[in-house]
Amino acid sequence: MTRALNFSAGPATLPEPVLRRAAAEMLDWNGSGMSVMEMSHRGKEFIAIHAQAEADLRELLTIPANYKVLFLQGGGLGQNACVPMNLLRGHAGADFINTGEWMKKTIKEAKNYCKVNVAATAEAGGFTSVPKFDSWKLDPNAAYVHICLNETIGGVEYHWTPDTGAVPLVADMSSNILSRPIDVSRYGLIYAGAQKNIGPSGLTIVIVREDLIGQAIPHTPSVFDYKQQADNDSMYNTPPTYAIYIAGLVFKHIKALGGLKAMEEHNRIKAAVLYDYLDATSFYSNPVAREDRSLMNVPFKLRDESLDEAFLKGAQGRGMVQLKGHRSVGGMRASIYNAMSVEGVQALVAYMKEFEASHG
Amino acid sequence: MTRALNFSAGPATLPEPVLRRAAAEMLDWNGSGMSVMEMSHRGKEFIAIHAQAEADLRELLTIPANYKVLFLQGGGLGQNACVPMNLLRGHAGADFINTGEWMKKTIKEAKNYCKVNVAATAEAGGFTSVPKFDSWKLDPNAAYVHICLNETIGGVEYHWTPDTGAVPLVADMSSNILSRPIDVSRYGLIYAGAQKNIGPSGLTIVIVREDLIGQAIPHTPSVFDYKQQADNDSMYNTPPTYAIYIAGLVFKHIKALGGLKAMEEHNRIKAAVLYDYLDATSFYSNPVAREDRSLMNVPFKLRDESLDEAFLKGAQGRGMVQLKGHRSVGGMRASIYNAMSVEGVQALVAYMKEFEASHG
Repeated sequence: MTRALNFSAGPATLPEPVLRRAAAEMLDWNGSGMSVMEMSHRGKEFIAIHAQAEADLRELLTIPANYKVLFLQGGGLGQNACVPMNLLRGHAGADFINTGEWMKKTIKEAKNYCKVNVAATAEAGGFTSVPKFDSWKLDPNAAYVHICLNETIGGVEYHWTPDTGAVPLVADMSSNILSRPIDVSRYGLIYAGAQKNIGPSGLTIVIVREDLIGQAIPHTPSVFDYKQQADNDSMYNTPPTYAIYIAGLVFKHIKALGGLKAMEEHNRIKAAVLYDYLDATSFYSNPVAREDRSLMNVPFKLRDESLDEAFLKGAQGRGMVQLKGHRSVGGMRASIYNAMSVEGVQALVAYMKEFEASHG
Repeated sequence: MTRALNFSAGPATLPEPVLRRAAAEMLDWNGSGMSVMEMSHRGKEFIAIHAQAEADLRELLTIPANYKVLFLQGGGLGQNACVPMNLLRGHAGADFINTGEWMKKTIKEAKNYCKVNVAATAEAGGFTSVPKFDSWKLDPNAAYVHICLNETIGGVEYHWTPDTGAVPLVADMSSNILSRPIDVSRYGLIYAGAQKNIGPSGLTIVIVREDLIGQAIPHTPSVFDYKQQADNDSMYNTPPTYAIYIAGLVFKHIKALGGLKAMEEHNRIKAAVLYDYLDATSFYSNPVAREDRSLMNVPFKLRDESLDEAFLKGAQGRGMVQLKGHRSVGGMRASIYNAMSVEGVQALVAYMKEFEASHG
């Protein structure tokens, strides 16, 4: 068996020790005689798995006690509806900072529920930076301010935390959660689809300050009502049990590696390997402002896009997969999540240099 | 390793060959160098897995071409909101047949969206039968008639198909889908959480006649809009890829065993082993009308409920787990889905006889 070097933006590469353990436990978890997939979500075995996963996530992110952790379904796009449904709390509208493809989807969905104020947008610059905070035209009556902390497609990431005062800050962290420490207390709500740094798709993690929930609008589906889910320990409906189990294994794995400080160091090293090379050549380019570059998703273009196919084919031949950029922007993209090794990124850069040498 | 005899109502026991294959492929699916969990949902590998799963499900259920098959998230309780959101189509209300705990949840959720007409209810008899069709007070202007084809908690199952004329019939088949052939063309919409006969929790299958979709109410979350999902091959958001893969393995497994006719024969044999004994003893009892008994979920009570704990402890000692009845009804419940063997049910009955002999 040869493992691919998988640069997919999500679902994405997972730590090999986690997969090995999942394989070993597939028919019999911990002497129970059952796969985790087969366990009643109300049984003592799964309740322990679920509680441990939550405890480890709380420890990794230092989540304050007045925040609920919910393990839900429906992905980031589901949350784009859940957030206004739950967090409008009688307000007419909310603020949005448009940083690219994901925020555009967030804004589009929010328009079904409330008045949308785009308080700042990076559209004029082709979504290659985070709008400077002093340019944000925030509405003091907004229900919340919604940002995407890392734009998976554009490769634009906040490396600072906006101070929105009394207005709760809501962040989509799908593609950079657990990549570095964050101060949860600065946010009213954080959500993340699991399929990048956490585990399988189909699990969505929501971390929400408990005073913000309990005022969902009447048409909110019960499974999307944070209060209902919080009151039932995320078991209002049957949770995605196997995905929670895998997420729990990933949390343990990150803890064993030293937690989020160690992850950040690891991720900074990897990103530097790739960005340093991109900055040293004119054969490839990355369009993002240096201070806003993502540590997780690195889009780049070949100077001569007629070479794209040859580049991808050569990569495939070296076991490097999923380097094609998102259809909305073209070019290439290397997603280098927690589970991607430094050696993996070094191998990519070595190939990029080799390709430049033979085609430059 | 000893596998448990797992009578859980869901998530539930899965076919061992499916789990073995999933374990073997965990680090490398089909030479791809990736776990299915790590694959981009837009990559050719997963698109093939997804298409094959849909094709096999269509073949197993003989799904007509004018029905869409959707692989969604949010479970049966999510569908209880999705159905009115999508299927009201300007109608004021819908009809509901109350057969127990699951329909009560369905009715409660529907009240958030429309006028609810409970056209028939089995409540007076303690939900131990399906109301006879000639007692149903259907509204000819109803948007649809909603039934639960198998009540997982009460153990009550329809063994016939209501003829609702021009009004679409909607059925929750979470706990009996794939247990026997059904005529899909008699239904407007079928939904099922995967975690009984199909695979891991977190996957919800919807089979819907295509002329019924496209008129969702304005507050419908996009991920819950059947038309949006149908137009995007269930990939409007990232689908629960690993759960779809396991479901696909289960579909192949059922096909290899002879399809749904073979499943029905297998399930009738198992159910007869258990019901025949329950009818032959007064030590245990099942309250459900004979013609409406579920082939999948068999609730039973001990005559002397003070023996419940001893019964469960003895079962546990023999590797039989999850026999405790649902908290809302008490007693015992044996869920005997497709993946439960005849031998498993025979072992349960042997233990029940032994327990009766020593405690009767």
